[in-house]
Amino acid sequence: MGINHFKRDDRDVKFILFEQYDLDRLLTYDAYKDFSKEDFGMIVDEAFKLCREVLGPAMQDGDRIGCKWADKAVTTPPSFKNCWKTMAENGWIAMTASPEFGGQGLPVCVGGLISEATNSANMAFGTFPGLAVGAGRVIEAYGAEEDKALFVEKMYTGAWGGTMCLTEPDAGSDVGYLRSKAVKDPESADPRVYKIEGVKRFITSGEHDLTENIIHLVLARIEGAPLGTKGISLFIVPKFWVNPDGSVGELNDMFCEGIEEKMGIHGSSTATLNFGENGKCRGILLGDPHTGMAKMFQLMNEARLGCAVQSLGLAAAAYDTARLYAKERVQGPPFTNRNAERVPIIQHEDIRRMLMNLKSGTEGLRAFLGKILFLMDVAHRDPDEAQRKKADHMSDLLLPVLKAYTADYTYTLIRDAIQILGGVGYCSEFPVEQYARDCKIISIWEGTAYIQSLDLVGRKLGLDGGKVFQSWIQGIMDMTNTYKEDPELAADFKRLFKAVGVAGEFAMKYMSYFQDGRMRLIPTTTTRFLDTMAEVEIARCLLDQALIARKKLAEVDPASSDGLYYTGKIAAAKYFCRNTLPGVFARQMAMQTEDTSLLDIPEAAF
Amino acid sequence: MGINHFKRDDRDVKFILFEQYDLDRLLTYDAYKDFSKEDFGMIVDEAFKLCREVLGPAMQDGDRIGCKWADKAVTTPPSFKNCWKTMAENGWIAMTASPEFGGQGLPVCVGGLISEATNSANMAFGTFPGLAVGAGRVIEAYGAEEDKALFVEKMYTGAWGGTMCLTEPDAGSDVGYLRSKAVKDPESADPRVYKIEGVKRFITSGEHDLTENIIHLVLARIEGAPLGTKGISLFIVPKFWVNPDGSVGELNDMFCEGIEEKMGIHGSSTATLNFGENGKCRGILLGDPHTGMAKMFQLMNEARLGCAVQSLGLAAAAYDTARLYAKERVQGPPFTNRNAERVPIIQHEDIRRMLMNLKSGTEGLRAFLGKILFLMDVAHRDPDEAQRKKADHMSDLLLPVLKAYTADYTYTLIRDAIQILGGVGYCSEFPVEQYARDCKIISIWEGTAYIQSLDLVGRKLGLDGGKVFQSWIQGIMDMTNTYKEDPELAADFKRLFKAVGVAGEFAMKYMSYFQDGRMRLIPTTTTRFLDTMAEVEIARCLLDQALIARKKLAEVDPASSDGLYYTGKIAAAKYFCRNTLPGVFARQMAMQTEDTSLLDIPEAAF
Repeated sequence: MGINHFKRDDRDVKFILFEQYDLDRLLTYDAYKDFSKEDFGMIVDEAFKLCREVLGPAMQDGDRIGCKWADKAVTTPPSFKNCWKTMAENGWIAMTASPEFGGQGLPVCVGGLISEATNSANMAFGTFPGLAVGAGRVIEAYGAEEDKALFVEKMYTGAWGGTMCLTEPDAGSDVGYLRSKAVKDPESADPRVYKIEGVKRFITSGEHDLTENIIHLVLARIEGAPLGTKGISLFIVPKFWVNPDGSVGELNDMFCEGIEEKMGIHGSSTATLNFGENGKCRGILLGDPHTGMAKMFQLMNEARLGCAVQSLGLAAAAYDTARLYAKERVQGPPFTNRNAERVPIIQHEDIRRMLMNLKSGTEGLRAFLGKILFLMDVAHRDPDEAQRKKADHMSDLLLPVLKAYTADYTYTLIRDAIQILGGVGYCSEFPVEQYARDCKIISIWEGTAYIQSLDLVGRKLGLDGGKVFQSWIQGIMDMTNTYKEDPELAADFKRLFKAVGVAGEFAMKYMSYFQDGRMRLIPTTTTRFLDTMAEVEIARCLLDQALIARKKLAEVDPASSDGLYYTGKIAAAKYFCRNTLPGVFARQMAMQTEDTSLLDIPEAAF
Repeated sequence: MGINHFKRDDRDVKFILFEQYDLDRLLTYDAYKDFSKEDFGMIVDEAFKLCREVLGPAMQDGDRIGCKWADKAVTTPPSFKNCWKTMAENGWIAMTASPEFGGQGLPVCVGGLISEATNSANMAFGTFPGLAVGAGRVIEAYGAEEDKALFVEKMYTGAWGGTMCLTEPDAGSDVGYLRSKAVKDPESADPRVYKIEGVKRFITSGEHDLTENIIHLVLARIEGAPLGTKGISLFIVPKFWVNPDGSVGELNDMFCEGIEEKMGIHGSSTATLNFGENGKCRGILLGDPHTGMAKMFQLMNEARLGCAVQSLGLAAAAYDTARLYAKERVQGPPFTNRNAERVPIIQHEDIRRMLMNLKSGTEGLRAFLGKILFLMDVAHRDPDEAQRKKADHMSDLLLPVLKAYTADYTYTLIRDAIQILGGVGYCSEFPVEQYARDCKIISIWEGTAYIQSLDLVGRKLGLDGGKVFQSWIQGIMDMTNTYKEDPELAADFKRLFKAVGVAGEFAMKYMSYFQDGRMRLIPTTTTRFLDTMAEVEIARCLLDQALIARKKLAEVDPASSDGLYYTGKIAAAKYFCRNTLPGVFARQMAMQTEDTSLLDIPEAAF
């Protein structure tokens, strides 16, 4: 156990839950009707207590002790056992999963925002419960009744862990090229039992000592299946075979060959798993043959959301470390009064600039995340099918944007946090350098920024004949039109209006490139298009928050803690629109050059 | 000894030395007239051999074994001893220092570009020789004859190390607040000997086992001296006292209290040094009392240049790792041909985009660095005083720009290199994650980006009544005017013309803020102004290179290695002007908002 570096308060989480989006609507849904706002408030309070008292103090153990591999086994830091036990016993592992299998049945918006906090407290640890639940959900969604009965509750309640095994040493982003094989097990009476053979690499939480069993979801190709992603099937491969009565049987023919040495998340094991070296690894086919990729995509979608939650959690923790440090650390006078006494560095203009990057960045990303979380609740639970579909489409459009932008932007924000601390920010005495190291992997997990941008341009732009994207643009234009004469924020809404126009311009360009055969110009700018959409959406979310805050501010004492919070909210929106959002116009200019230098340069000239 | 990760070739270094800037002019100077271009070519070849064979293979030892502190002593990795011995024996430690004291007397441009390579090979190790020479130079410049005789040659030839001791636990960027004290030593016959007392923190290479002695340059306040930077004096404080006959005497009253645990550069010791705990630490006053800061600034100026060299070295190494990986790693088909075979990922459009960031970024920064290095040679050695002054002023103006921008931009570039490698980029199997960790400190060393930007705006803009900045602007405008009808690059020159106008607009704004009392708006944008100048200068340097390359390309086979190099050069200039330079216009827009949200927000709202 170490020092708790989790310093966050829950004000911004409660603003999103109780003041920004329409929680009342969610509470009318059958699935949530037994909850009240008070329940959610109490659950958030308890979660923050868990972060402070249990997860936070184990964070640096994860980094410094780390996971150790020896003789096929992985040992996690001792304090991680306590984290697991506490989370399992108190129902924190599967907050939003179905109560039928031991989940807590919370709305996605509540669970998602709590996850952001637990990731602030201990992101590396969070990979273990995160994958247990994620894999459990796939079995719940696609498994036969007997699979669900055998596995799901154990995975939701912390008895067993879980993984997703896609990547192989020779197949990463192009998972369709994987080599793992499956053949029917002639010794099994159950036609769904196969023998699995293959090596999987970079398997997060792939081996550990937190649970008595680990349930691997493994992508493999059934002998004779077509090449590419269409020939891939999904298998449940338990580390220890599970008998029909639910008892844990013999060790499957699989083992952990080793774990990676990494830049960060030393507390999370990144395993190479060898399946079927002796031809005896048994796996259970999950759903129909050759449908594995689609199923894995469900888990990957959840994991993409998880990536945003993880990286935002780290940046939020970095912001808190930086702002508390800046209030305490006394150094020379500010720029505008060079002869003054030394002051806390929060009074230094450039420190404030970086703090505002962190404040507007983390709050803006959280508002964006909150929006998608609410959309998901509507998409899953609303009684009106049209509403469900609309919400589902919008969250589908925005999810790759959220994932890719959050992962990249938070790396930059954490850099600012290090810079605010100066020399000590580079030292392990403070946790910010660890946040930077832990954060970097997230831009690679679950599809890189580029892969997200291809999903956006290749699949999501065309959703419902392009109407989803159009309605996203229209929604923002309507808002900017409503507030274009706003006495305080008119210029910001005008800038947002221009910025959303740039997003539209990108989309129009892509259409014309498709039509006139200049396809090669598309992939050179898709990440820029994605970043543009992200900044536009964040600006919109922050302005939405500012409008709410302004109303509330009129009702409270500006010097009260709520008053200060609302004042800060308005400042964050202004700052983002005036300092970060202009980046959109640099991307516009770059796009308009239609530069092909990167395509034209001969390979040998690199 | 480990694997050599240094893969660079010297083509770009030789382009800058032999094809871009006017080396012939330098060779007419007295100090350099005994050298020839062939000499420099051979020296560069030898330096790259040193990198491949000695420094490179020790790089990961620095990270993995690291420096260890125990009982006041610091142990460096075993392979570092061989690095030191080889560099010392072959004259690599003090390449550009004066031959009178054992230096090699090479031009700054040759030494600087070689240093960039040695930092690519082993940046952490490089801090030891770097500070030995830097401290030696200060003694050479300001020391009494007997000090020079005692210390300088030993420091230039690798017998002794050196440090600069500014930072204290309670005084970092505001060094004027330091508490270290000096009182005349009543027991010494020499009136220049003082007793030093104080604790210095974050002292790079502050303690190690590479040399028999370490000569610390310590900033301290002589009893009764005024507060602030004007009351600070500089002292030579040898770890072991040096007797007048040059022999090494008893251990001074000082010791290393410990070293920092850090994000990176584990191979470089970052020491806390305790001077005079028993009231017996002897130091020699260097120059006049209360003039310490000015002298330390010489070392800091050199160190700022060193920071650019270090961070560029790391980014260049990251680029090489990434481009070689991209040529070998085979994955799925590119965007424009989804049904193609798997190809090396260098054929993937987004991988190329990131490689072009790295190529244009590192080559552009190197050209910018090369320009300043040449200016320094002219400033130090040209027989014409007017030329010396002009070059000195221009390098003075640009040095803070180079330092701050290089340190920040390379962190982003190395992020791209990690991304190109994907999952393995996050793992220690490849060196890129180490480059990212090593690099981050450089934006804090020798003045943060903000401090550099204040130096730029507060001191450098006004150099020679503002004429230096004006001539910088004019030079770029003249160039853009000359090429505004260029058949290939006209649009790029026009964009550069607009961009340099933005730099001018920033400066005009600052003037008006000064005049109308809106000083508070200045520090909110100085880092953006600095970044704008940097990108304008880099674009100019790359376009200059492209013009040279285009001429040369007409004379060689385009498929030859030179032909490919020149083609790549032109592509890099285009790419930077079309994709990176537009960032200037986002900063312009942000500046024009004159946003004060970061100043207005109450401290408690953070």
